[in-house]
Amino acid sequence: MNLALAYVDQNRDKFLADLREILTIPSISTDPERKADMQRAAEWISLQLRGLGMAKVQVMPTAGHPVVFGEWLGAGTSAPTVLIYGHYDVQPPDPLELWSSPPFEPEVRGDYLYARGAADMKGQVLACLKAVEAIVRTGALPVNIKWLIEGEEEIGSENLDLFIQEHKDLLACDFCLNADAGMLAAGEPSITTGLRGLAYYELRVHGPAKDLHSGMYGGIVHNPAQVLSELIAGMHDAKGKVMLPGFYDKVRRLSPGERRDFARLPVRDRMYREQAGVSALWGEPGFTPAERVGARPTLEVNGLLSGFTGVGSKTVLPAWAMAKISCRLVPDQTEAGTTRQLRAYLKQRAPRDIRWELVYLHGAGAALTSTGNPGVQAMRLAMKEVWGKEPHFLREGGSIGVVVQLQRHLKVDSILCGFALPDSDMHSPNEKQHLPTWFRGIETMVRFVHHLA
Amino acid sequence: MNLALAYVDQNRDKFLADLREILTIPSISTDPERKADMQRAAEWISLQLRGLGMAKVQVMPTAGHPVVFGEWLGAGTSAPTVLIYGHYDVQPPDPLELWSSPPFEPEVRGDYLYARGAADMKGQVLACLKAVEAIVRTGALPVNIKWLIEGEEEIGSENLDLFIQEHKDLLACDFCLNADAGMLAAGEPSITTGLRGLAYYELRVHGPAKDLHSGMYGGIVHNPAQVLSELIAGMHDAKGKVMLPGFYDKVRRLSPGERRDFARLPVRDRMYREQAGVSALWGEPGFTPAERVGARPTLEVNGLLSGFTGVGSKTVLPAWAMAKISCRLVPDQTEAGTTRQLRAYLKQRAPRDIRWELVYLHGAGAALTSTGNPGVQAMRLAMKEVWGKEPHFLREGGSIGVVVQLQRHLKVDSILCGFALPDSDMHSPNEKQHLPTWFRGIETMVRFVHHLA
Repeated sequence: MNLALAYVDQNRDKFLADLREILTIPSISTDPERKADMQRAAEWISLQLRGLGMAKVQVMPTAGHPVVFGEWLGAGTSAPTVLIYGHYDVQPPDPLELWSSPPFEPEVRGDYLYARGAADMKGQVLACLKAVEAIVRTGALPVNIKWLIEGEEEIGSENLDLFIQEHKDLLACDFCLNADAGMLAAGEPSITTGLRGLAYYELRVHGPAKDLHSGMYGGIVHNPAQVLSELIAGMHDAKGKVMLPGFYDKVRRLSPGERRDFARLPVRDRMYREQAGVSALWGEPGFTPAERVGARPTLEVNGLLSGFTGVGSKTVLPAWAMAKISCRLVPDQTEAGTTRQLRAYLKQRAPRDIRWELVYLHGAGAALTSTGNPGVQAMRLAMKEVWGKEPHFLREGGSIGVVVQLQRHLKVDSILCGFALPDSDMHSPNEKQHLPTWFRGIETMVRFVHHLA
Repeated sequence: MNLALAYVDQNRDKFLADLREILTIPSISTDPERKADMQRAAEWISLQLRGLGMAKVQVMPTAGHPVVFGEWLGAGTSAPTVLIYGHYDVQPPDPLELWSSPPFEPEVRGDYLYARGAADMKGQVLACLKAVEAIVRTGALPVNIKWLIEGEEEIGSENLDLFIQEHKDLLACDFCLNADAGMLAAGEPSITTGLRGLAYYELRVHGPAKDLHSGMYGGIVHNPAQVLSELIAGMHDAKGKVMLPGFYDKVRRLSPGERRDFARLPVRDRMYREQAGVSALWGEPGFTPAERVGARPTLEVNGLLSGFTGVGSKTVLPAWAMAKISCRLVPDQTEAGTTRQLRAYLKQRAPRDIRWELVYLHGAGAALTSTGNPGVQAMRLAMKEVWGKEPHFLREGGSIGVVVQLQRHLKVDSILCGFALPDSDMHSPNEKQHLPTWFRGIETMVRFVHHLA
């Protein structure tokens, strides 16, 4: 292990150069015009895997973007097999004008590397690749490794579900290592044991056949932008509780022990406020901010569009209005349940004279991993050695579809960690990776493999 | 007069060719990139005026787009002086993809000429120009004429106000002829005696410093798109009454006589429904649709924008949300009054933890013209001769800033008419002018000048 750690130390510049290279590829999975870039990113990963001596390396097609697979089973059947999951796709970079440097031209400023995907999650995939590189260049892997690097995480990992079902034998493992979860703060190693689920919708409200002159029709035609606003307004009560009928019925109550764990986390309201850039926090009454993010479901408006939105004024009564709306789910809510509740709400509340459509775009269930899992314990030891302190066990607000899919189809839990910090601006302009933490992450991965063996 | 009418008959093709020419210029006043096209359109009009033997023809600068002026005072001081108002600017054509033929490539299909501005109001300006052409080519004008053709009607005629104040002597007249109002239906000649005013705003709600990951912050950060929706929702009650404090306080009550006039109009709910493409009408209880459009104030959402609005999904909690909102005003409401009411509403209702901004973009007062005005009577006679029936006296829902400005600064009323039909899709894709009505309009204008004299 010491040789591998020395290799990490000696190759910091090379590792960083490799990370910069993959970050230049604009692999935006939601953008149909980026199909060729998606393929390029997948090929880049597969070349890395071949370079590490992995077998069966393939860029495997799906109905959407391809999956990269590779494996090394030389540790034998008595050694554990860990499936390393990652995704090579990224979020769209818009609004572009808010970036200080172009999103796909990685730039180091101070301790940070700025680029779309630097934190979410090309940086984390590279940390895993470089840890394995350090081990195989200085000795032999003491465990079996499989790689599953997909291209559709940012759009809900929908085709991955079928891929996993159709390749159960190929993917068989003892557990999954998933570095797509982050750290609580710099210097605070963290393992995520809970994730919220997601159900993402587009709600469209249709009014008149076309945009109308608001002077000629204002006062006699029901305005779809107003109707949409009223529908959205009714989805929460004044204090922030979600008002869809039955929304909280299946939500698991927090035990006193779970509430104590949440209370013990070194998170402060001020930290959340500063990260978000808001003067005050907000949300469902009766729960702490950490509980609301980790263990309570939400409903958010992710986007609004209707009528004239350019500079200046145009006196139209819009033909339609659209909202992107998503729910974050917790055990034991389901996407299908939320869809039913949202439909029931709209049926009850939408005026009869306008037409609405609810399109389900994608989703994922919520997930919990036991802290007793041997992979969690190996990661705990590795982190303790690197940071000199016990890691935090977190329940996070985000959603990672593959965690639910692997539980459902392979019956394996995921060890969720990662070396992105909360201020890394994932999904926002100026996404960045804290480089000192990234190098510690590579060291952690080397030690994790050692403790697994 | 008969010679002039014969000239109109003989020059239909030439008149139409001239109309097509001005319609090819994309003079979109709200678009800063169209400044050169605005100038071109103004020059085109000034050339026409020179061709008609007008004196003092000038393209006169303002703080915004220029005003075209010209006059002919050869009828002497005992003859009336009519100021012919028009505007050479047009609405933006978007959404472009809904046009069957390009908005600035005029195309005749059936009885209609399709192009942005064909109805609103280059078509109407040309009807006036061509009527005067017919008169001056076949004899002499029996009345004095001044022309005031501006370039900012579609953005609120804001600079025109100062222009009129600074050129009171130049513009002095007995009344204004303004063909920017339309007809009730094909075959139903109409004179508009009332117009609603306008107050147009942009309401911006600011939440977190940047777009956030909706998983990491959903449940602890107040969502500005939700707040905006709630604010908009509260602006009407469930039945369609505007809930801004004091909104109806200054509204003049309809007299029994006025209500009888409204009831006599040949407008049917079905007609409104078909024109708008809706299954049912909607609006303030206690008033007929014609009363709501002509004599009741409204508040409309003209546009909404927030967060991610592209194809697919992006899990952001938006940093801000924006709405374009406008009120249609009736006597004796004022723009300043509405602004105060909207601010009071927002102060009362907006949550303390988010920041809002209300930007007043532009507006105009409401206006009424007496049916006893000699210009109104000359127009009534002209229309009766052309269509064989008495014109309707209408109160319209739209706003025309110049009408209020001329009343205020020159103390003159406007004769509001026009030859655009209600289905002409002004401000919408596929704007069109009904050509048989347009030629009747030219004839009407010739007869109007005759009856004035």
